[in-house]
Amino acid sequence: MQSYSVAVLGATGMVGQRFIQLLAEHPYFELTCVAASERSAGKRYASAAKWYLEGEIPEAVRNLEVVPVKPEKVRADIVFSALPGGVAREVEPAFAEAGFIVASNASAYRMESDVPLLIPEVNPEHLDMIEVQQERRGWDGAIITNPNCSTIMATLTFKPIYDAFGIEEAVVATMQALSGAGYSGVPGMAIVDNLIPYIANEEEKVETEALKILGNFNGSEIEPASFKISASCNRVAVLDGHTEAIFLRTSEEATPEDIKRVLRSFRAKPQELRLPTAPPQPVIVREEQDRPQPRLDRNAGNGMAVTVGRVREDRIFGIKYVVLGHNTLRGAAGASVLNAELLVKTRKL
Amino acid sequence: MQSYSVAVLGATGMVGQRFIQLLAEHPYFELTCVAASERSAGKRYASAAKWYLEGEIPEAVRNLEVVPVKPEKVRADIVFSALPGGVAREVEPAFAEAGFIVASNASAYRMESDVPLLIPEVNPEHLDMIEVQQERRGWDGAIITNPNCSTIMATLTFKPIYDAFGIEEAVVATMQALSGAGYSGVPGMAIVDNLIPYIANEEEKVETEALKILGNFNGSEIEPASFKISASCNRVAVLDGHTEAIFLRTSEEATPEDIKRVLRSFRAKPQELRLPTAPPQPVIVREEQDRPQPRLDRNAGNGMAVTVGRVREDRIFGIKYVVLGHNTLRGAAGASVLNAELLVKTRKL
Amino acid sequence: MQSYSVAVLGATGMVGQRFIQLLAEHPYFELTCVAASERSAGKRYASAAKWYLEGEIPEAVRNLEVVPVKPEKVRADIVFSALPGGVAREVEPAFAEAGFIVASNASAYRMESDVPLLIPEVNPEHLDMIEVQQERRGWDGAIITNPNCSTIMATLTFKPIYDAFGIEEAVVATMQALSGAGYSGVPGMAIVDNLIPYIANEEEKVETEALKILGNFNGSEIEPASFKISASCNRVAVLDGHTEAIFLRTSEEATPEDIKRVLRSFRAKPQELRLPTAPPQPVIVREEQDRPQPRLDRNAGNGMAVTVGRVREDRIFGIKYVVLGHNTLRGAAGASVLNAELLVKTRKL
Amino acid sequence: MQSYSVAVLGATGMVGQRFIQLLAEHPYFELTCVAASERSAGKRYASAAKWYLEGEIPEAVRNLEVVPVKPEKVRADIVFSALPGGVAREVEPAFAEAGFIVASNASAYRMESDVPLLIPEVNPEHLDMIEVQQERRGWDGAIITNPNCSTIMATLTFKPIYDAFGIEEAVVATMQALSGAGYSGVPGMAIVDNLIPYIANEEEKVETEALKILGNFNGSEIEPASFKISASCNRVAVLDGHTEAIFLRTSEEATPEDIKRVLRSFRAKPQELRLPTAPPQPVIVREEQDRPQPRLDRNAGNGMAVTVGRVREDRIFGIKYVVLGHNTLRGAAGASVLNAELLVKTRKL
Repeated sequence: MQSYSVAVLGATGMVGQRFIQLLAEHPYFELTCVAASERSAGKRYASAAKWYLEGEIPEAVRNLEVVPVKPEKVRADIVFSALPGGVAREVEPAFAEAGFIVASNASAYRMESDVPLLIPEVNPEHLDMIEVQQERRGWDGAIITNPNCSTIMATLTFKPIYDAFGIEEAVVATMQALSGAGYSGVPGMAIVDNLIPYIANEEEKVETEALKILGNFNGSEIEPASFKISASCNRVAVLDGHTEAIFLRTSEEATPEDIKRVLRSFRAKPQELRLPTAPPQPVIVREEQDRPQPRLDRNAGNGMAVTVGRVREDRIFGIKYVVLGHNTLRGAAGASVLNAELLVKTRKL
Repeated sequence: MQSYSVAVLGATGMVGQRFIQLLAEHPYFELTCVAASERSAGKRYASAAKWYLEGEIPEAVRNLEVVPVKPEKVRADIVFSALPGGVAREVEPAFAEAGFIVASNASAYRMESDVPLLIPEVNPEHLDMIEVQQERRGWDGAIITNPNCSTIMATLTFKPIYDAFGIEEAVVATMQALSGAGYSGVPGMAIVDNLIPYIANEEEKVETEALKILGNFNGSEIEPASFKISASCNRVAVLDGHTEAIFLRTSEEATPEDIKRVLRSFRAKPQELRLPTAPPQPVIVREEQDRPQPRLDRNAGNGMAVTVGRVREDRIFGIKYVVLGHNTLRGAAGASVLNAELLVKTRKL
Repeated sequence: MQSYSVAVLGATGMVGQRFIQLLAEHPYFELTCVAASERSAGKRYASAAKWYLEGEIPEAVRNLEVVPVKPEKVRADIVFSALPGGVAREVEPAFAEAGFIVASNASAYRMESDVPLLIPEVNPEHLDMIEVQQERRGWDGAIITNPNCSTIMATLTFKPIYDAFGIEEAVVATMQALSGAGYSGVPGMAIVDNLIPYIANEEEKVETEALKILGNFNGSEIEPASFKISASCNRVAVLDGHTEAIFLRTSEEATPEDIKRVLRSFRAKPQELRLPTAPPQPVIVREEQDRPQPRLDRNAGNGMAVTVGRVREDRIFGIKYVVLGHNTLRGAAGASVLNAELLVKTRKL
Repeated sequence: MQSYSVAVLGATGMVGQRFIQLLAEHPYFELTCVAASERSAGKRYASAAKWYLEGEIPEAVRNLEVVPVKPEKVRADIVFSALPGGVAREVEPAFAEAGFIVASNASAYRMESDVPLLIPEVNPEHLDMIEVQQERRGWDGAIITNPNCSTIMATLTFKPIYDAFGIEEAVVATMQALSGAGYSGVPGMAIVDNLIPYIANEEEKVETEALKILGNFNGSEIEPASFKISASCNRVAVLDGHTEAIFLRTSEEATPEDIKRVLRSFRAKPQELRLPTAPPQPVIVREEQDRPQPRLDRNAGNGMAVTVGRVREDRIFGIKYVVLGHNTLRGAAGASVLNAELLVKTRKL
């Protein structure tokens, strides 16, 4: 298969480092460029970035010179964006206009009507929105996005249930890991012997993104799914791995066994295409009464599978369960990489 | 006011120590006896108990000799029970039969039809069940119980809303503190960088106890409240303080401002009677978007007030908010002490 | 006794808030002014500061207008400085020159030859350096400082041992709390399931400050104590409370019982003068083999006593023990307040 | 190479699980038997053990039937012992007498004069003690032991320094992980926002074991090394990875650069023999000022390398540094496995 040169924008942060980890030895992609803020530009990556992950900076990346986040400074076919929202809003269109494919983890363009908000297992056909986007905006490149981390975990479980039984209402209470806020996002003083029952803008994302993802693309626009989602989002003293308590009213009645069956048997495009980052089984269902747990389950499927447990009857909604996934792998960098894998495997760039 | 001699059963554990802390200098009660398992019996309290709380063991208790948990060994008017469920089931009736008032934090008899399950701010009139109990069981003493810790926090917020607007449905997702499992209940290995999305029997308690508490005592039995509660319970790395994300469908429409108003203005019997352990304001409402937090809010009202925050509109239920309270004070030892205060203040023993 | 108006410089940070907590109801001092960076200046304190401590902002302070950290904007007899090192270096002399007594927690001037580095229990006579300072610098006011937090805990134990037996060598391995780095100083991502075996400039402070404090002021300069101290400093996942493992070679032989006796019987000027913030017993010695522990012992003596445990023989040095103290009370804000109390009680301002 | 059948004694605990993880796919050893207490005996391993590690129980072990810890019930050439001290004292000799090689992580026989206390990089020649042991005790099998976890980390760094410069005195202050106390050894309530400055019997082990290991075996007995070690041991809120602050007086003067050089270039028998569990470089030296850190460095060399940082001059001893290693891999199960690898590679069983 053809190889593509790729760059990471926002390469020194938490998600940027996960991108580097995933791309260092990738069968489709060759990481040839790292871009970051002016403060880092000009330095070798190893001296610009404080490496937060276990193990060493991949050898091939250590000595790359960090370039500024500007299209004219970046050489690559695809750029992965780990930029903060505000910066992303400004520079991602410039990259798309300059002909780059931008696989973005930023929230800035997720809800735009012509931008695919993609989970390859859920709505691979939304990639077709790229043509609308390119035509409408006059771009040679394009922006494709992945959802918010909490949305991804929930939606991977919604998809097979939605297809089999329909969904009327979903309540999602999250317990989210520190890494989701970036390395310095939550002070130790704020979280030891504590939790914070608030994450800025998170509930809105969880309540709306899944409806776009599960929506129907009619060739020109998305008709979003019509059920209701309500979320309450919390930050807890966990390093990696978001846990979500989900309550679900299905359209057709479904028993816990029905739900477990459709979750377990769920396979989709990425598994069929054997995309390198795709987990063999996107949703793992466990029977132990006290699982999933972040430390034990976040790395399932190399951090790309989500784990479901405690599927049981609910007095109000009919069904409740717990889902957990690795927020900076399946929920961020891994999501963008899987999007790009789907793209290069299914279309000509 | 008359003074009553009191004993603590299960005096060496986590909740037992909180009882001792609360009773050491109490205006109504004189702590004259501590009882614990055979292993501790015969020792001085200071050598039988490993003291977990800040500060020292109260001077008057240090040298009390620990007695076995048997009615014939205990001298007191009232016994506070911090016994584990199984033991409580066996010995509490023996104490009641022997003429003791048993103010119990154990779950064993909470749901019995003739046992008051009491939150003094919510259902003080259920104390009348004692007569039914004494008559039916032929006891001179009686058992009165307080609810499960998570139930207490939620129900203190339900009461004024229920009275003002009615409640149709409630979803409760909890993030519960380690102390709720007892001192050795959750290993450090299990909870550092982790959470556990399961607490044995907890969801059942949260889903049923509030309905008894908010029910109507017709002189012979309780007619429970008829709305539905659904719970998902989680253990997190917090020492003290249970946090609960609550979603609520009221019978009559209510705005967040309506809800905050009735919560803030809620006062009840314990405040009216100025019971020593009663907080001046049982439900504190905060406006900061990231409160309540366990470490900052658990000690509000000397650990006897609950704190509500993030009252907001919900897409599905209409209302959602977060409530937090100290699980071993308001949720356990403090609850039992307040029950006993109500009892001695309102009736002859 | 006369009352003094006081101000806090750097009032919004971690140590600043502790100052406010200690000064809100102080018998000698009236807190009339809070100063902070330009970003906060002009706002009411309650909206400028994110309050990190349990409980509410003291009522009298909530609505104070924050002023800039400039002598001409501050009205007070004494200013307490919780400023960061760099800022302190610039502005503290300006305040002293303008006639203020500056009781500083900052490190900037601690080691200056004419600035008292004070622990009131240890070297109250060093206050006499003020005259040298005022004369030499031509100031009407003066700067008095308290030591680094880790120094204070260690030195409070060194003093009675030094007086009774002499000290030849001391090794100090610290395990320091997060609050010592300021509220945002250590990210949660850096410290959950982790520790950091490094604190910038800390070891140098521990190795030198105690020698100045235990030194002799001969009327014009300090002759520092001549023993050697070696330190290794670590940050651990504790909110408040520094723990230090200390190994000590005394000049004259001393048994663990000797050491415990002199530590326990240690009383000094602040106890004699009954200074309001002074603990009745500056060094508490415990016999349990697993104490002191931060969560159980940091608040001893209202956070102003240090707790020693595990006093035992050592194969190399003769003696080893563990000491613990509250780093933002005894180790910072409380230290400055106690310094100021000593000052106003023993001299005319 | 010949393959040996092996068993794990104490297979369900924390260290037992690490043994299983290491032995599941081992080039020399085939894990054919798991033994544990009577409570587990007779069950399938998967139902007897609560698996604490990431990932699943190795397939080949899931369905093994747990046997009692008795020589007549165990079939294997070598048994790895993860038994608690008391049990080990009783049963390990029975196994050795019955002809088994016992590679033990237990402390019971470590200091016996005819039992090798082995770190394969440090004292492989002490294996010769087996003959003395077998002759003296009349055993067909033998017991070989690995040191206490904290001893191993320190001694791996002592060895090259001792050989190059000699050692006169060493002070060791440890910050040890929770897993060292076993899964339920330290309650979450005891360690969140806390540390415990005491570990039973640990300091004695650190102060004596290294001297035996660095001693000379003269054919009939060990002449221990003669320098002095002093330790102060602490438990901190870290899951895996012991960190030790070490102060060292060498016999011949050595600069930090000297020390780093001999640590970095240290290679020994296990590296020469390419033992499967041996790390390519036993001691990794880092230059960053804030390393090693448990979460970032504990898995270096698959958890079998130790990482040293902050090598610097010391005012009292000359040299100080920090060392870190994985306590249940290099410090326990991995140590025993490496011992057994050395044994089977260098001698006939």
